[in-house]
Amino acid sequence: MQDDQGYLQRAVALARDNLEAGGRPFGALLVKDGAVLAEAVNEIHLSGDPTAHAELLAMRAASQSLGPRLEGCVIYASGQPCPMCLAAMHLSGVSRAVFAIANEEGEPFGLSTAAIYQQLALPLAQQRLPVRHLPQAGATALYQRWKDLHAQG
Amino acid sequence: MQDDQGYLQRAVALARDNLEAGGRPFGALLVKDGAVLAEAVNEIHLSGDPTAHAELLAMRAASQSLGPRLEGCVIYASGQPCPMCLAAMHLSGVSRAVFAIANEEGEPFGLSTAAIYQQLALPLAQQRLPVRHLPQAGATALYQRWKDLHAQG
Repeated sequence: MQDDQGYLQRAVALARDNLEAGGRPFGALLVKDGAVLAEAVNEIHLSGDPTAHAELLAMRAASQSLGPRLEGCVIYASGQPCPMCLAAMHLSGVSRAVFAIANEEGEPFGLSTAAIYQQLALPLAQQRLPVRHLPQAGATALYQRWKDLHAQG
Repeated sequence: MQDDQGYLQRAVALARDNLEAGGRPFGALLVKDGAVLAEAVNEIHLSGDPTAHAELLAMRAASQSLGPRLEGCVIYASGQPCPMCLAAMHLSGVSRAVFAIANEEGEPFGLSTAAIYQQLALPLAQQRLPVRHLPQAGATALYQRWKDLHAQG
């Protein structure tokens, strides 16, 4: 973990460069076994893609060589990962994450996702974004078929 | 909302087709003003990208014509959106979401993300995935600079 400091400084430098280039102030690295497999910045200003966060792009880039399982990978992010990016880390098996600037520090600048974390922690019916469960007859047969196709042994 | 049923049936049909084509049983539509702007399926089996969920791909596709703000858009998903996808909806301003199969129904088949929702709702120090805040001297000056560059009026 001795290198955490160096990788994190690089993530902050990427964020700084991205800001000066017209982007949002976020950068990230993905490191595995001491090798930097991906560097990324927030690219929403370039691609118009609302999911183009630095951490998500770093994971997507690394998956092109590693595949979808990212066990053993460490994410270094200039800012506290948003719930989209943190959930992606959980989904892909990223081993740990380190960040420099917390949501509390970003709050006065409108650069915090604490409010979205709060939303996702609520029961669906209480969330601001309406998410409705509309059951479809027989739809769960789809999952039984998934299990039949992929059952172990 | 009368069309919710039809759009959702289409999302389930996409999921079914994707399963039979070797993918995971998830499909989604993005609809705005009664027009289907994007259809997508889970493409992890094709791209190796762990973020290639149907809902995320539908949002990314729609953003290529709409840009990063997706207000007025509705997502129809065969399965209950995972926290990565739901957070992306919050981030981009998607107006609402409708899904057919709930996490509770997916649980027996290993097709639920309820456990990840539970993780994200915990304080960082209690989450299974270690996420460490390592403050960097002067890093928040980056956010002040962001504010200075983008201050209104």
